[in-house]
Amino acid sequence: MTTPTITLRAIESVYLGGQSVWLNGLPTSFQRTAMGAPAREVDPNGEHTVGQIYAQHYALAEPRHPFPVLLWHGGGMTGGHWESTPDGRPGWLWRFLSAGFDVWVSDAPERGRASWAMYPQVYTQEPIFRTKDEAWKSFRIGRLEEQPNGAMRREPFPGQRFPVGAFDAFAKQWVPRWTGHESMTLAGYDALIRHVGPCLVVGHSQGGGFAVAAAQRHPNHVQAVVAIEPSGLQADAQARVCPHLAIWGDYVEADPTWNQARQRVLEHWQTANANGNKFDICDLPSISINGNSHFPMADNNSDAIADIVIRWLAQRSHPHQSLIKGDQHHETQEIF
Amino acid sequence: MTTPTITLRAIESVYLGGQSVWLNGLPTSFQRTAMGAPAREVDPNGEHTVGQIYAQHYALAEPRHPFPVLLWHGGGMTGGHWESTPDGRPGWLWRFLSAGFDVWVSDAPERGRASWAMYPQVYTQEPIFRTKDEAWKSFRIGRLEEQPNGAMRREPFPGQRFPVGAFDAFAKQWVPRWTGHESMTLAGYDALIRHVGPCLVVGHSQGGGFAVAAAQRHPNHVQAVVAIEPSGLQADAQARVCPHLAIWGDYVEADPTWNQARQRVLEHWQTANANGNKFDICDLPSISINGNSHFPMADNNSDAIADIVIRWLAQRSHPHQSLIKGDQHHETQEIF
Repeated sequence: MTTPTITLRAIESVYLGGQSVWLNGLPTSFQRTAMGAPAREVDPNGEHTVGQIYAQHYALAEPRHPFPVLLWHGGGMTGGHWESTPDGRPGWLWRFLSAGFDVWVSDAPERGRASWAMYPQVYTQEPIFRTKDEAWKSFRIGRLEEQPNGAMRREPFPGQRFPVGAFDAFAKQWVPRWTGHESMTLAGYDALIRHVGPCLVVGHSQGGGFAVAAAQRHPNHVQAVVAIEPSGLQADAQARVCPHLAIWGDYVEADPTWNQARQRVLEHWQTANANGNKFDICDLPSISINGNSHFPMADNNSDAIADIVIRWLAQRSHPHQSLIKGDQHHETQEIF
Repeated sequence: MTTPTITLRAIESVYLGGQSVWLNGLPTSFQRTAMGAPAREVDPNGEHTVGQIYAQHYALAEPRHPFPVLLWHGGGMTGGHWESTPDGRPGWLWRFLSAGFDVWVSDAPERGRASWAMYPQVYTQEPIFRTKDEAWKSFRIGRLEEQPNGAMRREPFPGQRFPVGAFDAFAKQWVPRWTGHESMTLAGYDALIRHVGPCLVVGHSQGGGFAVAAAQRHPNHVQAVVAIEPSGLQADAQARVCPHLAIWGDYVEADPTWNQARQRVLEHWQTANANGNKFDICDLPSISINGNSHFPMADNNSDAIADIVIRWLAQRSHPHQSLIKGDQHHETQEIF
């Protein structure tokens, strides 16, 4: 449920982490950096800052939970997609604030306002760019049907909840990405968590994988993790860590890549639980919520998915209360 | 003056404008896009979206002015710098909201969350990256003194108001930029203004030049322009347009590039006024506000500069009231 208004005591942003690199021996150029102004020499040689993370903090005047929620985007995305859905409905930022959580929205290193660094001088590789057809398929919005003229037609899956009429608007949210930058990205999230302190992390896709890793790297800070269709797990499933919830949408089993990713998560979760952790799984179709794409926070039932996340997090953000109530894990199962 | 809390009815964002480009004939690659996942084929050929603008809208529950303020960053920056100063004080976003204006903060095409496009396939040139030394000099924070070992030492100007202790943090806000992209950027701002409707535009540096151009391109929408140290004017000084205010900081006359930019603005303003417009100039040192850099919204007197902008805008954002009061231009002169 959203509230009609939200009262904040601060909207602020920080740029954290990163390091200096010195470049030299690069050619200078003469360029006109302002309309109608004379060309000037542009010299890229010298000290640059690379690897920083950017985060916005929305601080409620009266938060109702002790820990803020950190919203982490997936690969090739920025924090912008938490603000509004592609078809213009309120995003999860507003919903989490409505639910009484302080919220941090970040752009990980190399993306959005966190900036990116020169390649091949600093980043060794070229970035990769997502096409609309690739996204249509890999985000499980639908099939690609080859037409007689060779072009592909984008056919949504029956019952699809992604707002397909806003797919072109959604494409405007994508940014280039690099592969092999996991260490840099984790270092950025390290800096963010050290800055924020105790927190709840909600990560989507690649950001979900980073959230699972961050929980292990910062056991005293990360109080709970919600991983929305996490990809790329790099954490020890046997470590004792905070409670985790993984959420999966629809059409997963028919997609080899996502089915494989989900199987890896299931195995990790089983091992974690066998080692005394409280790791939950919510397959949305198993609770009769059908038709969700890889972006449930954009789907037309985004509010319902947010409610699931918020209820699960609310139980875990008041640890003393939970202890009084008894078995945290058992209570959780009742939600689904 | 800021308020301790702000009540909003919406925080939302939009991605506007842009167009599709189709790329083909590019090589595919195999890359591991998630930690520990198998490498997959990455195919950049197909439909991409380029040239969009990103904007966040902070809508007050009870705005006290009829028109929202649009905050436009300068070259190589994003909208992030309006949120907090580099040393962590509240930015102009919070101040304008405190003053009762709805606010839109945008990232222009090619920057931040607006994304950027492949080069040389879409953008024909490589981007340029700002070094710390270049910024120190061109933002008029201080001098560069060559040391015996050949390195440059950054020496702030006496009386400098930029928070020089946060200069390294400030460097984390910079993003790569391209030259020659004015048409694309103006098209992005066109899309934003058409989306917002009647508005007040506050543009910094390159964004100030775009604001002046936008006032002429959208005479029915842009109600007033504040250009903070505008660079790159491309507008007809003889056109009848809304009231404009240009603000200049300190150390300008000793800097040939900025002195020249300021002279161009002075000439443009004089011609505009000779043609019946109401164009004001505020040289901060002339009203005994000394020591401001090229980034007055980051300087340690950023609140005082915001107050000047807010008072000037408030007078122009109630046009019917102003008509009753008489000569708008004459009233303005009294501020300075």
